[in-house]
Amino acid sequence: MQLTQGLKRARSLYGRRVAVTCGTRNFTWEQLVDRIARLAGALRGLGMQSGDRVAMLGENSHRSIEFYYGPCWGGGVFVPLNPRLSEAEVLAQLGDAEPMALILDPAFAGRAAKFLAEVPSLKAVIVAGDDPAPPPGAHSYEGLVAASGPAADAGRGGEDLAALFYTGGTTGRAKGVMLSHANLFVNAMNTLVNARLESPPTQLHAGPLCHLAAGGRVFTNTLAGGRHVMLARFRPPELLQLIERERVTGMSIVPTMIGMLLAEPSLQTADLSSLRTINYGGSPIPEPVLSRFMAHLPQVDFGQSYGMTELSPIATHLTPADHRRGGARLRSAGRAVAAAEVGIMDDADRLLPSGEVGEVVIRGPIVMAGYWRQPELTARVLRDGWMHSGDVGYLDEEGYLFIVDRKKDMVVSGGENIYSLEVEDAIHCHPAVAQCAVIGVPHETWGEAVHAVIVLRPGHSLDAAAVIEHCRLHIASFKCPRSVELRVDPLPLSGVNKVNKALLRAPHWEGRQRGVN
Amino acid sequence: MQLTQGLKRARSLYGRRVAVTCGTRNFTWEQLVDRIARLAGALRGLGMQSGDRVAMLGENSHRSIEFYYGPCWGGGVFVPLNPRLSEAEVLAQLGDAEPMALILDPAFAGRAAKFLAEVPSLKAVIVAGDDPAPPPGAHSYEGLVAASGPAADAGRGGEDLAALFYTGGTTGRAKGVMLSHANLFVNAMNTLVNARLESPPTQLHAGPLCHLAAGGRVFTNTLAGGRHVMLARFRPPELLQLIERERVTGMSIVPTMIGMLLAEPSLQTADLSSLRTINYGGSPIPEPVLSRFMAHLPQVDFGQSYGMTELSPIATHLTPADHRRGGARLRSAGRAVAAAEVGIMDDADRLLPSGEVGEVVIRGPIVMAGYWRQPELTARVLRDGWMHSGDVGYLDEEGYLFIVDRKKDMVVSGGENIYSLEVEDAIHCHPAVAQCAVIGVPHETWGEAVHAVIVLRPGHSLDAAAVIEHCRLHIASFKCPRSVELRVDPLPLSGVNKVNKALLRAPHWEGRQRGVN
Repeated sequence: MQLTQGLKRARSLYGRRVAVTCGTRNFTWEQLVDRIARLAGALRGLGMQSGDRVAMLGENSHRSIEFYYGPCWGGGVFVPLNPRLSEAEVLAQLGDAEPMALILDPAFAGRAAKFLAEVPSLKAVIVAGDDPAPPPGAHSYEGLVAASGPAADAGRGGEDLAALFYTGGTTGRAKGVMLSHANLFVNAMNTLVNARLESPPTQLHAGPLCHLAAGGRVFTNTLAGGRHVMLARFRPPELLQLIERERVTGMSIVPTMIGMLLAEPSLQTADLSSLRTINYGGSPIPEPVLSRFMAHLPQVDFGQSYGMTELSPIATHLTPADHRRGGARLRSAGRAVAAAEVGIMDDADRLLPSGEVGEVVIRGPIVMAGYWRQPELTARVLRDGWMHSGDVGYLDEEGYLFIVDRKKDMVVSGGENIYSLEVEDAIHCHPAVAQCAVIGVPHETWGEAVHAVIVLRPGHSLDAAAVIEHCRLHIASFKCPRSVELRVDPLPLSGVNKVNKALLRAPHWEGRQRGVN
Repeated sequence: MQLTQGLKRARSLYGRRVAVTCGTRNFTWEQLVDRIARLAGALRGLGMQSGDRVAMLGENSHRSIEFYYGPCWGGGVFVPLNPRLSEAEVLAQLGDAEPMALILDPAFAGRAAKFLAEVPSLKAVIVAGDDPAPPPGAHSYEGLVAASGPAADAGRGGEDLAALFYTGGTTGRAKGVMLSHANLFVNAMNTLVNARLESPPTQLHAGPLCHLAAGGRVFTNTLAGGRHVMLARFRPPELLQLIERERVTGMSIVPTMIGMLLAEPSLQTADLSSLRTINYGGSPIPEPVLSRFMAHLPQVDFGQSYGMTELSPIATHLTPADHRRGGARLRSAGRAVAAAEVGIMDDADRLLPSGEVGEVVIRGPIVMAGYWRQPELTARVLRDGWMHSGDVGYLDEEGYLFIVDRKKDMVVSGGENIYSLEVEDAIHCHPAVAQCAVIGVPHETWGEAVHAVIVLRPGHSLDAAAVIEHCRLHIASFKCPRSVELRVDPLPLSGVNKVNKALLRAPHWEGRQRGVN
């Protein structure tokens, strides 16, 4: 079970058809596989050994697809990094993953020397622009691909590590989710079962490929022989133009994108008649938003997915047939994909019958191998083969999963998971702060926005703008609070002496339902 | 990747729905899984250790489904045997597989003592009838299931051995095809992708479950949450009644069955409106037969599959959309399933471009682990990960596979693969025979019939009836020649001094195409 096999199959079946469209450029499957084999050859030439990591920091492009396969082809492991992270966060993840090479978008080329100096594992920094001339202190991606011979596939597969995907760490330390070839391959098969394809699709990668929510579709689409259409960054007018120009048949998006598309004037005039399937998931979607979108695209099969990076990433699916039937199950996350069991457990790890609320647990070949170099953290979430999601929910009589609360304190804003503890850590290091709690509050566009509740030390003063300014020094801008509330009284505590965030959230969510995925 | 996981998933999603219908009996998923766990418990109680084999000799019944999962649940390996084999053949396979237990239909109960005496590995013989009282010298299946507690799942999966399926050996020795959990699981996913299910199907198991052509659908249907409807043995009127009574939605059959159904008068009156999908494969189908059947069932999605036991078993698929398009590709075997690569190789194991004829080779997670205890034979067909099918064919520009000759000399009669060398071995041991060659000749009902061409020793005489009678002593009746030709001249030889069977076949196939699957 090798990820690269899907690629070779697509080359064999569709060799001269277009595999990737990126701006005005097109690459056939033969060209794509050739570039991937050359990238693998270049990485081997730079010293990549079996199991070595290769990281990439950049926006979506045809090189993102090559990066999803190239290191694996050469026997390595790919590690996508989020270009929206702060430099300190990127350095922390690089220090943790210890990649032998780092591929950078030209926008980050200026940091090449710094990365080389501060990440001892790095043997090479590669700038992934169109210029084949090597930039100072770095290699040129195009230069390497042109100069290298195609490597033979290293033949890794099955339980061999294929990728590390970083997710924000609740303890402050980022978690590298270890996914094997089998993990990602089985996820692709699960999603292919749900795709019901009659002919090769044209799939728009609208979400950032540094996240597996978008990235998982790369493998599905390759197995389907579909054309990959790249969007560097989500902007509603560009997305609509791209659908029209490239006759896109499918895409996978987060609810926030749906809201932004509905607000985009050109939605009314864009020709979206080519669209056949839209998958969404990753955060709650308000029913009126979904209804309006479905009504605007009556020919489209809508599917919803629930999962997490640790599940490669999709665990349940609400099918197009479920969407057409409508009713209460539209608020569910659907049912277990073919190669997964989904259960609900109580605090003693006993499976609960349908209707009872508990922690959502998942078992099967999609469950990650563990967290990179964090065996204790792994043991905390993987027990008896069951991945403990941290989400709370229940199953109905026919196995439909309803999430009643997501990972308790996580804020999902614009499809990004923001861990409240991480934001709190940033706030806490300001000397004026005595206590703080970060919660998600409703936001029309982003689903939720980060809100901080702060108690100051006696004799200190601080305003909201200063808090946000302070946070920007430590964490990515999208994680910083959008609003700040300063309190005099201590924060309310729960039974186990933790801040009772449910109580803090309650007034903001009055009359609304939070956390139904 | 555990076969039993699909079962647990189905219990969780569909617990109180019917899982198996066998005659007038119905078992829910909860009941089925309970019986399987008890069967596993009973086998452990009888001494089954991890990796131990358990064989079964019987017609299709609800116990066949239990047998597909029970040994695996308890950590063992299931070995289905063909009830149409001669006792000597069964004994040879038992001697090769060395099972710790043998499950017999009541029709074979009289042989329990003989099997126990002649197969030293056997710790128990179990008679799978309805009577809970133990027959002499044997255990009662129902008695064991009633008395045993449900075992915990042993947790085997991935590359662990799940099953041995015997295929006729060209060298006279039967080959036990070793299939892992991952092999059979991935095949189920591949076929699920092609199934395009909107709601759980009702699948009729029309073919014998001792063959993986029929058996593979057991795992697919469980993953789909479908009801298994059992047919003990294929007879057209019973099959049609069963479809009508149980509102069957899908079945998988061989072309011979299609021919027999078309010849069955009650086809015209049977209510087959519930049927949605029919998969066929395993032997050539004459185009007029397929056209007539498709015309009779216009609402049905037809799919064709090509494969072999060594491929778990399905490697290519001709989709319903391909069938609707019609044309020359209706004579193809379709294209590679999602988790497989299909190629054509020359005699030096070099992959050939599309259009060129060579040996059909397949790579991917569906390729068997090897032949049981026959590493040399395994090495002969598995080279560099590619399974060498022994079939000859080509791929067209879009990857459609055309088989131009099947395993050169194999006779496919009524869906059974009959190896000509095995029949020749039987004939050859008659003292009057100097030379012989067995070929397939066209047969209206069976697709092909076994035909023997014999040169007698000088001074000897023999007639056709005596040849057939002699064969019956050595091989199963269905493998014996249906017609015999006695020659005076020596048989024609090919370039490498083998009998030129193509030349022998030619006059029989004049004006017809043989071997297009």
